[in-house]
Amino acid sequence: MDELKVIEIKKSIYESNDVEAAKLKKDMKDKHVFLLNLMSSPGSGKTTTLVKTIEELKSEMRIGVMEADIDSDVDARTILKTGVKAIQIHTGGMCHLDAPMTKEGIENLGIEDLDMAILENVGNLVCPAEFDTGATKNAMILSVPEGDDKPLKYPLMFEIADVLLINKIDVIDIFDFDIDVIKKRAKRLNPDIKIFPISARTGEGIKEWTDWLRSEVKFVKESN
Amino acid sequence: MDELKVIEIKKSIYESNDVEAAKLKKDMKDKHVFLLNLMSSPGSGKTTTLVKTIEELKSEMRIGVMEADIDSDVDARTILKTGVKAIQIHTGGMCHLDAPMTKEGIENLGIEDLDMAILENVGNLVCPAEFDTGATKNAMILSVPEGDDKPLKYPLMFEIADVLLINKIDVIDIFDFDIDVIKKRAKRLNPDIKIFPISARTGEGIKEWTDWLRSEVKFVKESN
Repeated sequence: MDELKVIEIKKSIYESNDVEAAKLKKDMKDKHVFLLNLMSSPGSGKTTTLVKTIEELKSEMRIGVMEADIDSDVDARTILKTGVKAIQIHTGGMCHLDAPMTKEGIENLGIEDLDMAILENVGNLVCPAEFDTGATKNAMILSVPEGDDKPLKYPLMFEIADVLLINKIDVIDIFDFDIDVIKKRAKRLNPDIKIFPISARTGEGIKEWTDWLRSEVKFVKESN
Repeated sequence: MDELKVIEIKKSIYESNDVEAAKLKKDMKDKHVFLLNLMSSPGSGKTTTLVKTIEELKSEMRIGVMEADIDSDVDARTILKTGVKAIQIHTGGMCHLDAPMTKEGIENLGIEDLDMAILENVGNLVCPAEFDTGATKNAMILSVPEGDDKPLKYPLMFEIADVLLINKIDVIDIFDFDIDVIKKRAKRLNPDIKIFPISARTGEGIKEWTDWLRSEVKFVKESN
């Protein structure tokens, strides 16, 4: 894939996002494609984590990435370098993606030849948590420099995430960040949340995180 | 001030935020109170920076703080400990404050006895940039761990900020963050932006930042 595809999406007019999300979820299931929605604040390492994740998995499964951004296309260009297919979705100023936007992204990306499609949501801990994209699973990243108080301030994001990646764990010694505290705060909001401390820079924890992805993709492939 | 005041603000129904923002701006000018709108991503250090700023300035001017948050009141409680007056504004899930919400905050805070009122906006690089709060000046924080590519991805925030505080400068050696690059990218979007590298943890750069605040507050006090 040589050309970078950029889609301009305007404010969705769908009345009921949840209905569309449920439809998309079913459609992905029927097509045996695992759709991951990855969310976080700006600068917590979504794209770097994706690059490491793709490098670990691309020899064993077919991956495609949708990069959502207000305006730029730097992230999609970074992903393209890994050799997997990627498109950029411009949200036209909107701070989240909803299910109709995701569906449009899926149609533009093309998923017939994929095992896993990944949606990198807009960098934001607030709005993306409020809109179900229709993804099979939601993952969020909280990076160590952001602080362990974030579940207190952005509870909905922690409630709707299936997985919490605690990134930049390699710099934990120089920040005031308590891993036991964050685990306790996240589990209080969401007892089932899976938590993986990782460093997208050093590769620490990427094995555990991608093992979880492997089993989820396998589950979707083999389900009827 | 012993009791923490919590205001619940529902979605604003004002049609034209800009009209309300201009009114509030004029009202603050007439009352000779400097209103600062402080914005950033979650976890970039808004509250810690405010605490350091207040400690530096509280003996020479009267300060009041409005802490906006989706739901919690941890930040307002932190500010109260500095001895200045502070209120918590709950945005009811909204990811920004607009001018009518700010006006309601100002009325609840009470500004007759203040030289400077500070609004700590919701942690978000997207939505708060889209709504003029009516503040005299806008300041934003970008912290080193978030990366120097943020002006490319969240340009509007850098365009509307009068001041860019580059926080967590004490850890710059362990992150891939180029101070010359960020300055160039920010100035390209906004040639007039003032840039102060700071560390709210060590106090580095706080003098330069508060000197700017001093001169702005003085200007508003002495203007007719």
